[in-house]
Amino acid sequence: MSNVRVAGTGLTPFGNTPERTSRDLFAEATVAAFEDSGVPREDVEALFYGNFMGELSEHQGHQGPLMAEAAGVQAPATRYEAACASSGTAVRDAVVRIRNGEADVVLVGGAERMTNLGTAGATEALAIAADDLWEVRAGMTFPGAYALMAQAYFEEFGGEHEDLAHIAVKNHENALTNEKAQYQSAIDVEDVLEAPQVSSPLGLYDSCPISDGAAALVLTSDEYAEEHDLDAPVAITGTGQGGDRLALHDRDHLARSPAAREAGEEAYADAGVSAADVDLAEVHDCFTIAEVLALEALDIEQVGEGISAARDGRTTADGETPINLSGGLKAKGHPVGATGASQIAEVTKLLAGDHPNSEHVPDATTGVAHNAGGTVASATVHVLEEVGR
Amino acid sequence: MSNVRVAGTGLTPFGNTPERTSRDLFAEATVAAFEDSGVPREDVEALFYGNFMGELSEHQGHQGPLMAEAAGVQAPATRYEAACASSGTAVRDAVVRIRNGEADVVLVGGAERMTNLGTAGATEALAIAADDLWEVRAGMTFPGAYALMAQAYFEEFGGEHEDLAHIAVKNHENALTNEKAQYQSAIDVEDVLEAPQVSSPLGLYDSCPISDGAAALVLTSDEYAEEHDLDAPVAITGTGQGGDRLALHDRDHLARSPAAREAGEEAYADAGVSAADVDLAEVHDCFTIAEVLALEALDIEQVGEGISAARDGRTTADGETPINLSGGLKAKGHPVGATGASQIAEVTKLLAGDHPNSEHVPDATTGVAHNAGGTVASATVHVLEEVGR
Repeated sequence: MSNVRVAGTGLTPFGNTPERTSRDLFAEATVAAFEDSGVPREDVEALFYGNFMGELSEHQGHQGPLMAEAAGVQAPATRYEAACASSGTAVRDAVVRIRNGEADVVLVGGAERMTNLGTAGATEALAIAADDLWEVRAGMTFPGAYALMAQAYFEEFGGEHEDLAHIAVKNHENALTNEKAQYQSAIDVEDVLEAPQVSSPLGLYDSCPISDGAAALVLTSDEYAEEHDLDAPVAITGTGQGGDRLALHDRDHLARSPAAREAGEEAYADAGVSAADVDLAEVHDCFTIAEVLALEALDIEQVGEGISAARDGRTTADGETPINLSGGLKAKGHPVGATGASQIAEVTKLLAGDHPNSEHVPDATTGVAHNAGGTVASATVHVLEEVGR
Repeated sequence: MSNVRVAGTGLTPFGNTPERTSRDLFAEATVAAFEDSGVPREDVEALFYGNFMGELSEHQGHQGPLMAEAAGVQAPATRYEAACASSGTAVRDAVVRIRNGEADVVLVGGAERMTNLGTAGATEALAIAADDLWEVRAGMTFPGAYALMAQAYFEEFGGEHEDLAHIAVKNHENALTNEKAQYQSAIDVEDVLEAPQVSSPLGLYDSCPISDGAAALVLTSDEYAEEHDLDAPVAITGTGQGGDRLALHDRDHLARSPAAREAGEEAYADAGVSAADVDLAEVHDCFTIAEVLALEALDIEQVGEGISAARDGRTTADGETPINLSGGLKAKGHPVGATGASQIAEVTKLLAGDHPNSEHVPDATTGVAHNAGGTVASATVHVLEEVGR
């Protein structure tokens, strides 16, 4: 099997641009990705595209062909939807396609337009990622669901809001150098604790924002990269996906994410690495508690210990395993369909030494991207490794 | 590479069941598919699921994990959306996964709940498969779009409504033995010509109905089928996908479907067959004119000649190449997300000799399934072959 090289990455700024359509956003991200890659558009054999709520925010389904057009490529295009893990699943199928020799060059990415719905509208739209019959109609929204998970975690393992606050502080700190981030502003623990409560114990600064944005990746086979002398020093060497019951009340534990564990184990085995080899990771911190659960599912932290990781400095920029050096969903922003692909873009740049925060991880060779949908009913994990220039 | 065996198929009745949720429909289809296959649910490694308008008809996105649960499988699940070709794209990625040894057993399928929206609501929901900014806001709906394609065809190649009427008559005739079909009623050419006009030249009987329903397929590798001594005499031996500009006004020709041609050429080459080898096909006849364009794109008919195929008996049940022996979308029904998978189910049974209409094609060994999205901005083609019991 061939490795899958990340030949180019492109991101729009993530933020509040309600007037921009998703086709507009995706076009911008792909211009950057093609420029970064040096790959001509004519070589693209397929587009794998993630989008979550286009039907509701833009009255637009069937975005695959539309986005191929926006990207300027003539190739079959498929839209993947797994809630907030939409472009994670798109990356996964792209990796399978390339490494088995079924394609040499593919475009992968995602986009989401959300802020045009307003905060209440976007929250309602996001809720379609939960079980409509048994959760949403009972009033559940995602801040409430993650608050339940946080309460369950505190009850089982201990911890308090202040521990979570350190995660938000860390991710805002990491985003200070990220010019594409929605928030480039430092906050402190006091700010988090004093922010308005959203759903106990989670407050405003425990929650990622509602965002517009797009991300694009040009992926190629080893053979193509070598033949065309591409500057593509990072490869996706492992892919994994896990699934769980959609509704929270059907789970055995609220403070575990077996779908992410399954995805992580599969991806590690696929790449031939273990959690101990992971030098850095981008994980799906839609809420601060989600970062804790992700670290434990990925075996970067032991179960019950992830809560102290940021507070004790193990996951800060100069810690043992820096987490969300991009700023994470929390500070970078979370345009849902773009998030999974954007994580791959960030890990690629960090490993290649092309990221403003690469200075914190000069010797890093192995990184992980963890993308989750709903209350982690869907999860994808990808392992990236530096394979050399 | 391994062949991909169709080990089991399951369909719900297609029709008018507005009270049934898509999870309910998909559960029924999967029960039938597992029973038909003899494969235990525990062996399923992934679910590839197609759905188009769940966000609008059920306020339900993130259907992958929900449908894994409905099917009783614990496996990662991804939802594919390519408008009316949604489950065609799901089948395609499933085939790639299996034939490269990345999985031995997968569940594929799709479901759609539509009639709860009412006719006007469903027509409006279907329109999200077109370009919202440039088509839908100008008043375009799919009957109108396909009517334009029919007018363009008549202008370039000749033909008249009566020619199209023979397609509707044939497909209703074929559905008479299909107990899952939405319409089991014979019609004649007069009925079609006298039916209320929908969009000139297309009338009510030129149009497929709005339908609820689900389809499921259990696919396995050759190795798994042999090891478990499955009765799975039909394999998917070729897969292809094509794409086109989303909006009709961006096409060079209204009376051509290059995306379907591209998908067909890829699938034929992949299977090592040519159009001359095709003994029967299920094609995407959402409107009568769509069957004409599909046959020409698949090289089953020469360009400009497909219009006379049904009238002259070349595609009737006892013709040279019977088309839509299931009744097609026209008479069997078109629950959008289920259609692509249901076509694979029908071709499988026809080739295996397990279909009520198999008696018309006793020597058939090669069949094709053609699934299209929008005005064929997306198309998938799969080649199925009898590989023996």
